Amino acid sequence: MRNSWVKYDTYTDFPLENLPFGIFKTAMLSHRVGVALGEYVIDMQALAATGLMNDLAIDLAVFSQNYLNPLMALGKKATQKIRTFLQTAFAEGNDSLLPYKDSVLLLQSEVEMCLPVYIRDYTDFYSSEEHATNVGIMFRGKENALMPNWKHLPVGYHGRASSIVVSGVNLHRPKGQTRPDDNLPPVFGFSKQVDFELEMGFLIGKETNLGETVSTEHAEDYIFGMVLFNDWSARDIQKWEYVPLGPFLGKNFGSSISAWVVTMDALEPFRVAGPVQNPEVLPYLQYEGNKNYDIHLEVLIEPENASQTTQVSHSNHKYLYWNMAQQLAHHTINGCNLNVGDMMASGTISGPTPDSYGSMLEIAWKGTKPVQMANGTERKFILDGDTVIIKGFCEKEGLRIGFGEVKTKILPAL
Amino acid sequence: MRNSWVKYDTYTDFPLENLPFGIFKTAMLSHRVGVALGEYVIDMQALAATGLMNDLAIDLAVFSQNYLNPLMALGKKATQKIRTFLQTAFAEGNDSLLPYKDSVLLLQSEVEMCLPVYIRDYTDFYSSEEHATNVGIMFRGKENALMPNWKHLPVGYHGRASSIVVSGVNLHRPKGQTRPDDNLPPVFGFSKQVDFELEMGFLIGKETNLGETVSTEHAEDYIFGMVLFNDWSARDIQKWEYVPLGPFLGKNFGSSISAWVVTMDALEPFRVAGPVQNPEVLPYLQYEGNKNYDIHLEVLIEPENASQTTQVSHSNHKYLYWNMAQQLAHHTINGCNLNVGDMMASGTISGPTPDSYGSMLEIAWKGTKPVQMANGTERKFILDGDTVIIKGFCEKEGLRIGFGEVKTKILPAL
Repeated sequence: MRNSWVKYDTYTDFPLENLPFGIFKTAMLSHRVGVALGEYVIDMQALAATGLMNDLAIDLAVFSQNYLNPLMALGKKATQKIRTFLQTAFAEGNDSLLPYKDSVLLLQSEVEMCLPVYIRDYTDFYSSEEHATNVGIMFRGKENALMPNWKHLPVGYHGRASSIVVSGVNLHRPKGQTRPDDNLPPVFGFSKQVDFELEMGFLIGKETNLGETVSTEHAEDYIFGMVLFNDWSARDIQKWEYVPLGPFLGKNFGSSISAWVVTMDALEPFRVAGPVQNPEVLPYLQYEGNKNYDIHLEVLIEPENASQTTQVSHSNHKYLYWNMAQQLAHHTINGCNLNVGDMMASGTISGPTPDSYGSMLEIAWKGTKPVQMANGTERKFILDGDTVIIKGFCEKEGLRIGFGEVKTKILPAL
Repeated sequence: MRNSWVKYDTYTDFPLENLPFGIFKTAMLSHRVGVALGEYVIDMQALAATGLMNDLAIDLAVFSQNYLNPLMALGKKATQKIRTFLQTAFAEGNDSLLPYKDSVLLLQSEVEMCLPVYIRDYTDFYSSEEHATNVGIMFRGKENALMPNWKHLPVGYHGRASSIVVSGVNLHRPKGQTRPDDNLPPVFGFSKQVDFELEMGFLIGKETNLGETVSTEHAEDYIFGMVLFNDWSARDIQKWEYVPLGPFLGKNFGSSISAWVVTMDALEPFRVAGPVQNPEVLPYLQYEGNKNYDIHLEVLIEPENASQTTQVSHSNHKYLYWNMAQQLAHHTINGCNLNVGDMMASGTISGPTPDSYGSMLEIAWKGTKPVQMANGTERKFILDGDTVIIKGFCEKEGLRIGFGEVKTKILPAL
């Protein structure tokens, strides 16, 4: 554990080992890059203005942008230099920044966090065996739960980038077409089955050209960092529309990401082995080393005006059957090109037990097992006024690296 | 018919009534906006530099950009002013531009056309009843050809924006996972079923905020113009991967659009009624007036080193069951936001007869009816070295408004 002259709680998500990047603004300050440290945000534009970073030989203008994309595009060596600089400058005993403390350190509670990345293309995978199996059992029965392709390739599909919002932006319940009764025509109205999906996303920091592939061996060079992701879903809209070309309006009314992007460097101590893959995968999907991450995840629901939240799930990123390196190798095996700012999400991360399922669809098992809230009400899906909060953190030998949260309130349909 | 002092053939795609926008460059000139006129391209940056457009009260810097997006974002009134200015300045008898002729007019054959639009989000619909029925018959039999939702909503899904290329950019045959034998494990290799899809795309020129809807009545305010679109598909990859979340690597190795964006103003004379929709659609999808367009479309294959091309399809945009206004109303009914530069494509446009089918899958009926080429060879799908050309034009009472072509050669797998 490193010690900093900035004081923070032992259980902070943001110790000196984490240093996640984000974009913030205030009434006085325009969009700029910030780095979380304890309950503070380091104003990187103000820090760059001190001149103390001039020796890093990187373009300091990246800190004065609306999005992290130019910073990510500098490459991992540059962001590692920035991390090392910050870990030195904020280390206990280093007083070089003290004269600038008031302009460089702001309280997180006094800034507004913005969408951190201009998300170019967004892909959602479907990489949790437990989730795919649960959904399969509900809709096709136990015998045909997993589709024949599922264990041979990381199933994925394209999502909508425009409607991805940052934590704190509330979303309206969507309207649309559903068919509640298969013997009657479809009807129009607001969705009655708004659901969260507990996911994590990773962000691409290095582009490829059309035609190029990325191997599992080199995939990590392309991954800048990770965020918490809530892939909001309107199950009734999705059910009626998705055959044969996949989810569309059931998903694209909004998706929420956390404000802080945690770098892969910060997550390095938390690598673990993934599930054994059987049958053996094709050579382009094989990999060496530990490519899963031990990231604790939890989902809480805070009903409107409730005095407390209710935890409805605790899961872990390590359960994922397909890892990020495999997802990236698969995504590019046909030559599809990557851009800085692409986001790829895991798909709902469900664990093996009902209390680790990653969506209300599974937790309340299609509405047959309503979930009790601490305030005495029950939930089959998300109600108007409910705030859904996803949190995530790694913890090991006294070191905690956290993601903060992604928090979204569902407002009534417009 | 308007007459211009620039001489062009009666059968040009680009008379003074058309004036499509594109982006071009040359060895000497950086990316900039061009407008097609006959066999020429009007260099809009050079034209703006003459000062003759100063009275239009628009930001002339939009002509010196890498993409049309800033021009589109000016709104329809601005582009209409530009069209009117050009139709006056290039009208027969007007000599105001003559002193600048050499800098303003370049031969299309001497410039390189670039991707005209930075495509933000890309959505592909599935709006041809004939195509959906043909594919349904092939894969599910005649009884269940159309899915139950198909006549109630314009089925659509999200595609990959990064791999959309302009006409003239060649694509490599993709590699990937397929399962040729259902009783054996999947295999890795290059796709053996590369196919074109005859489509058209429309480009969004006006944004909305998350939560807003666009009615069929107002949809046209948001549509800047149209392009020809070839939605390349690897049928064998698609078949194995697409259940249950839709097409992914079978599509995202590349998609091709034409270089010239034809404005809706130019297409106005070619409105026609669409097919009668039965059953009646829900109120948010109902519309008034003629919302289909009579656009002749054809597909040609030019085998490598062949002395001539073979026309394999001639279809028409007017066959589409769902029109653009309905597609846009549906896309936004849940509050999904639009950005300037979004592209929405029609889906394969098949007509009622086999010679009007819009893909090799349908034309050669899953490989059972190979197509004869003029050079004596036959095709079930597209072979290495084949160039596929899609052309499109409207014609009525001596007026022809054309789209040029989208032309792509399939190179061997890398």
